[in-house]
Amino acid sequence: MLQIKLGSKLWLEEDGKVFGDGPFDLLKRVERHGSLRQAAKEIGMSYSQAWELLNTLENRLGFTLLERKVGGSSGGGSVLTERGKQLVERFDGFRQEATIELNRLFRKYF
Amino acid sequence: MLQIKLGSKLWLEEDGKVFGDGPFDLLKRVERHGSLRQAAKEIGMSYSQAWELLNTLENRLGFTLLERKVGGSSGGGSVLTERGKQLVERFDGFRQEATIELNRLFRKYF
Repeated sequence: MLQIKLGSKLWLEEDGKVFGDGPFDLLKRVERHGSLRQAAKEIGMSYSQAWELLNTLENRLGFTLLERKVGGSSGGGSVLTERGKQLVERFDGFRQEATIELNRLFRKYF
Repeated sequence: MLQIKLGSKLWLEEDGKVFGDGPFDLLKRVERHGSLRQAAKEIGMSYSQAWELLNTLENRLGFTLLERKVGGSSGGGSVLTERGKQLVERFDGFRQEATIELNRLFRKYF
């Protein structure tokens, strides 16, 4: 009916938002680069803001998402914990399938 | 994995948001009550805010959503135009199916 597209935001909640598209995007980038600093930079977030977000997320989720690797020849970096990886993988699968389904329904109705 | 639920926001966009869950909720209430005043009141919006939102939506969509009925024994009220009704119906169907699909996928992944 119009030249329109669908927009969506999806998140997990438990007495408020727990984890959603924004944090997922950040963690995917951490996984890719092995560095929170690099990940934050890519999305225009300061390093301290990114740490603050991570702390908030970890408090809400009740488990640790990132392990900080200190030192070494590469000067350290950040890697996802096992539970962090699991969360990112699940959200990734969910988000991809959800996007496909939402677009299918969008085309059906609009 | 957690005691979590899914949250979602869905909207139509074309150079920015055009129509989404909030406006849909307002228009459904207008349809139910035949009154923008009543609809706005229910969601804690002032009457003038509601008119402003309506004007913004109509400008973005490029068509009229509400017809104002003036006077009569009931003191007037607001009804949806044909195109307004059509939009609400489509978004309603889309939203309902989308919610079902999203919850199915959510249970699959979490």
